[in-house]
Amino acid sequence: MSRIAYVNGRYTPLAQARVHIEDRGYQFADGVYEVVEVFQGALIDEQRHLDRLARSLRELRIAAPLGDGALRIVLREIIARNKLRDGFVYLQVTRGVARRDHFFPDPPPRPSLVVTARLNDPAKIEAKAAHGIGVTSMPDLRWKRPDIKTINLIANVLAKQAAKEQGSSEAWLIGDDGMITEGGSSNAWIITPDGTLVTHPVNNGILSGVTRATLMTLIGSLGLRVEERRFSLAEAHAAREAFVTSATSLVTPVVSIDGSPVGDGKPGPVASRLRERFHVIAPRTR
Amino acid sequence: MSRIAYVNGRYTPLAQARVHIEDRGYQFADGVYEVVEVFQGALIDEQRHLDRLARSLRELRIAAPLGDGALRIVLREIIARNKLRDGFVYLQVTRGVARRDHFFPDPPPRPSLVVTARLNDPAKIEAKAAHGIGVTSMPDLRWKRPDIKTINLIANVLAKQAAKEQGSSEAWLIGDDGMITEGGSSNAWIITPDGTLVTHPVNNGILSGVTRATLMTLIGSLGLRVEERRFSLAEAHAAREAFVTSATSLVTPVVSIDGSPVGDGKPGPVASRLRERFHVIAPRTR
Repeated sequence: MSRIAYVNGRYTPLAQARVHIEDRGYQFADGVYEVVEVFQGALIDEQRHLDRLARSLRELRIAAPLGDGALRIVLREIIARNKLRDGFVYLQVTRGVARRDHFFPDPPPRPSLVVTARLNDPAKIEAKAAHGIGVTSMPDLRWKRPDIKTINLIANVLAKQAAKEQGSSEAWLIGDDGMITEGGSSNAWIITPDGTLVTHPVNNGILSGVTRATLMTLIGSLGLRVEERRFSLAEAHAAREAFVTSATSLVTPVVSIDGSPVGDGKPGPVASRLRERFHVIAPRTR
Repeated sequence: MSRIAYVNGRYTPLAQARVHIEDRGYQFADGVYEVVEVFQGALIDEQRHLDRLARSLRELRIAAPLGDGALRIVLREIIARNKLRDGFVYLQVTRGVARRDHFFPDPPPRPSLVVTARLNDPAKIEAKAAHGIGVTSMPDLRWKRPDIKTINLIANVLAKQAAKEQGSSEAWLIGDDGMITEGGSSNAWIITPDGTLVTHPVNNGILSGVTRATLMTLIGSLGLRVEERRFSLAEAHAAREAFVTSATSLVTPVVSIDGSPVGDGKPGPVASRLRERFHVIAPRTR
């Protein structure tokens, strides 16, 4: 089946899906994106993703390319046309096409909207989570507003690639203060020896994860103790468990950091339980 | 005349010039660029721009899309097909098209190459330089490798736009240490009360400007004193003159910083003289 993409008002085979070379997303990374999980044909946490998209657009002063209602229809069309049961939809909005100049084009062009589908094999993903992943620490070289989900991702790309070359699946980024901010494309969590879950507070230093937010509700309902505070690499090495969260990885146990095992080097019981329960409580919309 | 762009091996009318939506330049800002001045039909500082492009590509581990000889031919074709006498050529290289995933695609795709032309009115540009420009200080929020000329430019875009809204033409970026790194799309210079030219040293904190490098030769030949060291906003306010350099602005006098005049608030004699002499000494190739 040829995959179908939505590009600026049209559904088109992915192979022919193109944007103009003077799209500001291509020349200035002047755009934002979201990745939304599709589970058993339903969108997971759709509202939170749309809310975050709206915030990212506001921060960059890009107009919404479509109203939320129309955008919801596009997401469903992309799911239907790609016969997507399990996987993700990716949506990207840029400031639009204009002659190259750093300043915002005046008057503003029509923002560009691209939506694609990605099919996944749930069994394969579950197998990976069952083994847990390794992470490697890397300096956080990103720009200072990673709370805006922009496509300015070269620092993330380089950190994740370097981690992969060390045999890991994710990079844990270390800020100037020596504290872990988050992963290259996920939020970072540890569980201290006394059983407290710890993750970086939501501020301009990290992306406010949708999966992170939904997990907070789950953590509360399970009566677990959680602290939103920074933590160091040394504290992570001493942790009982560790895990990452994102729309694509959900809750995935971390079994090693920089080659050293976390706890007994196997996925921890709390992370595994949170993963099992995640789809039970996460909002689904069709 | 419809403008002509080069896109991945083809010369095409700009209006139809497109790249795939999964070009990594569009989804990850995974690419680099150069802007080369064209003056009286000749390329200015072509070799330095090609050398810097090669360095940027090496830093990101992207293969060269073409050999230097072929790339030189493309630049000349773009100049000829656009009847470009005065203006700029813009070239952009990205890692190429691949299914979206942060990690480098393996095997690597063919890098994408886009080249466009921009016609300018030399009289208009000279008039602007004759008036001088204002700059506004802004926090430097860029990623920590601005020495690589990547398309991760959202921080530059936001800083320059904010400066424009303060009535300025350029942002001067202030690092965490309170020192000026460079402009949003130019290098920053001051001339101290004792007549010494000062600009930030070349390191990972700034882009190593081609115009900056060529200007160093000119400064030497004129017997002026220059120091490559960091300088603060306070020192800039006390400067006798200030100016910016880039391939598009050449040497442009700065007449105000954050609304306060530099010196007597008019273009300074040294900056003006450097501008006049620049095209006399800069290497030209046809």
